[in-house]
Amino acid sequence: MRNPFGPRTGLPRLRESTLAGTMKETRLIERLVAIGWRGSRSVLVGPGDDGAVLRGGLVLSTDLAVEGVHFRFDWTRPEEAGFRAAAAALSDLAAMGAAPEALLASLAAPGDAALCEALQRGIRDAGDRVGAPVAGGDLSRSPGPVVIDVAVVGRTRRPLLRGGAGEGDGVWVSGELGGAGGAVAAWSAGEEPSVRARSRFVRPPDRTGLGVALSREGLATAAIDISDGLTRDAAHLARRSGVALVIDAARLPLDPGAGGDLSLALAGGEDYELLFTAPEAAAGRIAALGRELAVPLTPIGMAERGEDVILLDLNGCRTPAPPDGYDHFAAPGDRS
Amino acid sequence: MRNPFGPRTGLPRLRESTLAGTMKETRLIERLVAIGWRGSRSVLVGPGDDGAVLRGGLVLSTDLAVEGVHFRFDWTRPEEAGFRAAAAALSDLAAMGAAPEALLASLAAPGDAALCEALQRGIRDAGDRVGAPVAGGDLSRSPGPVVIDVAVVGRTRRPLLRGGAGEGDGVWVSGELGGAGGAVAAWSAGEEPSVRARSRFVRPPDRTGLGVALSREGLATAAIDISDGLTRDAAHLARRSGVALVIDAARLPLDPGAGGDLSLALAGGEDYELLFTAPEAAAGRIAALGRELAVPLTPIGMAERGEDVILLDLNGCRTPAPPDGYDHFAAPGDRS
Repeated sequence: MRNPFGPRTGLPRLRESTLAGTMKETRLIERLVAIGWRGSRSVLVGPGDDGAVLRGGLVLSTDLAVEGVHFRFDWTRPEEAGFRAAAAALSDLAAMGAAPEALLASLAAPGDAALCEALQRGIRDAGDRVGAPVAGGDLSRSPGPVVIDVAVVGRTRRPLLRGGAGEGDGVWVSGELGGAGGAVAAWSAGEEPSVRARSRFVRPPDRTGLGVALSREGLATAAIDISDGLTRDAAHLARRSGVALVIDAARLPLDPGAGGDLSLALAGGEDYELLFTAPEAAAGRIAALGRELAVPLTPIGMAERGEDVILLDLNGCRTPAPPDGYDHFAAPGDRS
Repeated sequence: MRNPFGPRTGLPRLRESTLAGTMKETRLIERLVAIGWRGSRSVLVGPGDDGAVLRGGLVLSTDLAVEGVHFRFDWTRPEEAGFRAAAAALSDLAAMGAAPEALLASLAAPGDAALCEALQRGIRDAGDRVGAPVAGGDLSRSPGPVVIDVAVVGRTRRPLLRGGAGEGDGVWVSGELGGAGGAVAAWSAGEEPSVRARSRFVRPPDRTGLGVALSREGLATAAIDISDGLTRDAAHLARRSGVALVIDAARLPLDPGAGGDLSLALAGGEDYELLFTAPEAAAGRIAALGRELAVPLTPIGMAERGEDVILLDLNGCRTPAPPDGYDHFAAPGDRS
């Protein structure tokens, strides 16, 4: 049996792509943040979390989707590509505990009005799902691949940040993991994904209600959305919080679309579920909240003194997870 | 002498490009707005103005810049392309009378870290000019042309809208017009633009202080920024306000970079100056404000009962300006 924790080289990583193989995207993003970020009286939380927080509890985030990198029209219809792009941006608001107020939709597309309208319908539908309109945007013809950039604005009185997890906190995940990764794996192998897996890819879940409730009730100490894979996003949360996250593989809620492949739940990405931490005392209320919202909420581990992500494998043995997850664009020497 | 009000076919229109020639971009934008826009308690002003206005006086706008459509790297350095893209987005906030608080910078670019960093430096510099940081953004590799999307957030207690001009209001313009168009015309003819014209293209003016003062002091009844050319943007303002704007060509402040070509001031675009209307009683205070801010403010006409834009040509004769300006992508039969 293949080691589910080993690097997978067959699965394309859609989210954190690498530029030219010379510098990993995460590192370049850090460089860009260092160039652009200035302390500001107006901006309470700058880059490095799921969204920026401005005075008045305003939360901003933006998400690019590039044809051929994040989506392909032989995999998804244009409406679905638009929906996914907007849902990905809205997922950042959910992870911050913010209620969405508006979307801005920018489309760079070759000359095809019907395509633009279909993309916009998808974006609109994702906004409708959370009660937020497309309040503006921009449009340009482009000779290149379709580029969708969705900026979102929401509000919260108490933003959920990545940096608040404390030792002893429980680690929770919403929904089920690995279904969207199952669709990508199937497409990449030239196969049709299962209906369930495809649906998880083209219609990411909406965790707005969960994020808003966690924020309002002060239940979570830290949160992040799972876009790049559980291991990788858990590592972001662990690093910002200054703790280790111990995750019990046997407790991971595996989506039926993952076809039993645990590595898809760990590193498949595209899940758009929430990973959050909470004090043990909140566990009962969190379980009740999951029932109220009809969202599966699963305790999958615990925050400890230390750093990075530690996996308890199916035999109960501790295995360090590479902090960057499985970066298939990284040079082999970069892998730990 | 060439009629300065006639259609120019030699000058590429950079801003309102057309998709596939089947539908003009303005019309497609209207279709996209109709698809995406829902009334909303949170959004006080939706699409159709320079920015959207949310509860609390929050103003949002976004601006796409696509390599080969809005800028070219054989015309401008990457830092300049980034600066222009951000300055264009910030110009929308100025036109709304909003003080900028933050930028979000999204870059879709081929694998070249140095290029991305240079673009980001330009975006950062434009933010620095108005005291707003780059609080977030996104990055993706893309095989296609470089796409920059800058979303901006600002605040105002009294947004300047396009729709408030009344009959009898004076029409004002800031700065000088046609310089950036002069640079595009020169490049398009295979020539080097003058230093002045080039500078007007790569470093659009910052009219934040003017817009904020007009809003704070309640001086302007309507405002718009001039990105697509005076005639075209004046037509937007006239239509939203339900008035005609009579513009006296002899009074237009012609930028030295326009090389004396009045048509560049009328239709060249890329000026990023403010066009605004104000009651006659405010004229004295506006003139004083221009001196305080060291921004030339020129009265160029008047709002009248009627519709569209009417040009008083250099002989004092009235000439209707085509409501869409000069759309070089439109089919010949579309031109009035």
